[in-house]
Amino acid sequence: MNTPTLLSEAELTTLGVKAFQGLGLTQQDAQDVCRVLVMADLFGLSTHGMSRVESYGERLLVKGINPRPNITVERVAPALVKVDGDNGVGPVVGMRSLQAAMDVARECGIGMALARGSNHFGPISPYSLIAADAGFASIIGSNATTTIAPWGGTDERLGNSPLGFGVPNPGGAPFLLDMAMSVVARAKIRSALKRGESIPDTWATNRAGLATTDPKQALDGFLLPIGGHKGYGLALVVDMLAGLLSGAAYLSHVKSWVDAPDEPQNLGHFFILIDTKFLGSGEWLASRMTDFAAILHGSPAADPTKPVIVPGEIELGRMAKQRRDGIPIDAELLTLLRKHAA
Amino acid sequence: MNTPTLLSEAELTTLGVKAFQGLGLTQQDAQDVCRVLVMADLFGLSTHGMSRVESYGERLLVKGINPRPNITVERVAPALVKVDGDNGVGPVVGMRSLQAAMDVARECGIGMALARGSNHFGPISPYSLIAADAGFASIIGSNATTTIAPWGGTDERLGNSPLGFGVPNPGGAPFLLDMAMSVVARAKIRSALKRGESIPDTWATNRAGLATTDPKQALDGFLLPIGGHKGYGLALVVDMLAGLLSGAAYLSHVKSWVDAPDEPQNLGHFFILIDTKFLGSGEWLASRMTDFAAILHGSPAADPTKPVIVPGEIELGRMAKQRRDGIPIDAELLTLLRKHAA
Repeated sequence: MNTPTLLSEAELTTLGVKAFQGLGLTQQDAQDVCRVLVMADLFGLSTHGMSRVESYGERLLVKGINPRPNITVERVAPALVKVDGDNGVGPVVGMRSLQAAMDVARECGIGMALARGSNHFGPISPYSLIAADAGFASIIGSNATTTIAPWGGTDERLGNSPLGFGVPNPGGAPFLLDMAMSVVARAKIRSALKRGESIPDTWATNRAGLATTDPKQALDGFLLPIGGHKGYGLALVVDMLAGLLSGAAYLSHVKSWVDAPDEPQNLGHFFILIDTKFLGSGEWLASRMTDFAAILHGSPAADPTKPVIVPGEIELGRMAKQRRDGIPIDAELLTLLRKHAA
Repeated sequence: MNTPTLLSEAELTTLGVKAFQGLGLTQQDAQDVCRVLVMADLFGLSTHGMSRVESYGERLLVKGINPRPNITVERVAPALVKVDGDNGVGPVVGMRSLQAAMDVARECGIGMALARGSNHFGPISPYSLIAADAGFASIIGSNATTTIAPWGGTDERLGNSPLGFGVPNPGGAPFLLDMAMSVVARAKIRSALKRGESIPDTWATNRAGLATTDPKQALDGFLLPIGGHKGYGLALVVDMLAGLLSGAAYLSHVKSWVDAPDEPQNLGHFFILIDTKFLGSGEWLASRMTDFAAILHGSPAADPTKPVIVPGEIELGRMAKQRRDGIPIDAELLTLLRKHAA
């Protein structure tokens, strides 16, 4: 009964589009959302995939997200656009912003979109892959609900903001990196607690802001950023580009997704796109990307069972496999999708 | 005899310019180099300041660096420039690239310079501050001599590439973040060895690529990147933007500064500049930046003696102090500068 059902990419997309249309979105907007979420599922990022229909749906139903946003794109300079998402579903605003940034980059060589009035926009790697497939290198980020403390501080004032990168490789596997700023996700601490294990003191602090090896205290406290003050700084950079400069909320001005589901979050994103066609031919780029990966793969592995990999390889491998074998969707999610689609 | 001499900013600059002219640079190029290096000293980054006259000078003298480069700037698209540094001194190429990127960003809103044929260009924060003072937010990076192993690998194949960011704050303190990708610098491991202390197993691996707490084995091994695979990925991103896409060397193609002092390193840099005047007024930006910092400062400190800080505050504080009190220059460096200046 709890065995997941295998759906093809097309089946999951069709069902997802109907579900989001059932939640009030236009067909075009529902397609944009599902393009991002299905790609997340294909990458194996199921927590950021179609399962998000649950939280997005809850907020759509209480009017915390606008199902029919009037998204405006203002070109404030030849290579710079500001996007007002009008509190639309995150991936709708994200896809519109990505498109706008690619449009100006195609003309100017580099282009940037700064989006405000948005919501959780899914993982970053789908945007990076869409950009890479069109020949663009990308730097993309979003701010997020506050869950981490400033370095040395003792209360939530910044988000575990995701930052992603992509570099195209014509005819080959692009480089894709999608990371949040914490050393580990909270789920990993929850697993340690379940197993009764202690955790490294670099993962999290207790409620008083002091490093802890106790998973229970860690879950009451704050995730630690990678590299301490370095990851703290990087998280701030993402929030300044995505939130402060875009005109969105930032830091503790971001409304909690959980505590205030009916209030707009006013999240912000940024998309920096570089059109590689201006830098050299496709052959030139492909040969450098292939050489780059070969140099990394050539380093003898410390653990022979774990060869060196290039970021993106795991996700692209899962995508190829699931395009062939289908995407496992659990019964509960399938029921929810069918309910909204009905 | 080893007491450092206090020089004013103007005195150190004048002496430095004469020294670099003595090493064969034009006055203009020597001024560019000293602008970056003196600012590094003002920030307290003395290992990346005027002390670099030693290593830059050695390479200039053996013709490993070209004292009179013919730097070319090619505008390949309205907002995109490629710079060929012709193996000039790093900060000369860096300043020319920064200028070129600001020029196109002023017109297009965002602009990018990709530099090849360069050398070590100093720390990043001086470039970020110059950009911020002119109203630009910046993302700047450089690749570097290979000193770290791919994640899970066992030989040096990538550099501890620096990445820096700046956001202007009209009338106030800009945000400045300048970081390398390793958890700590090798100097910190050397200190532990000297004190006979063990190190956390997150700092470095031994020669076999396995985590170690022994500082001696760590110094024979490889520095670990922040957040493990995350920092590894970030270092690769910097190298792809600065090296692979710019047409410079990348990964193990970068020639060693130490082993091959007479061969061009062909380092690459990238400068992404965003002209904030297109995003809102100076008052708007200043008020958001002030609020942003206030939110962070407002988090109660875990250790009351260490209040929460915003990246850049330490460096800007030292700059103010040393502009007032002078910059300490040790006797050996002073002698070397005077020798080259003679």
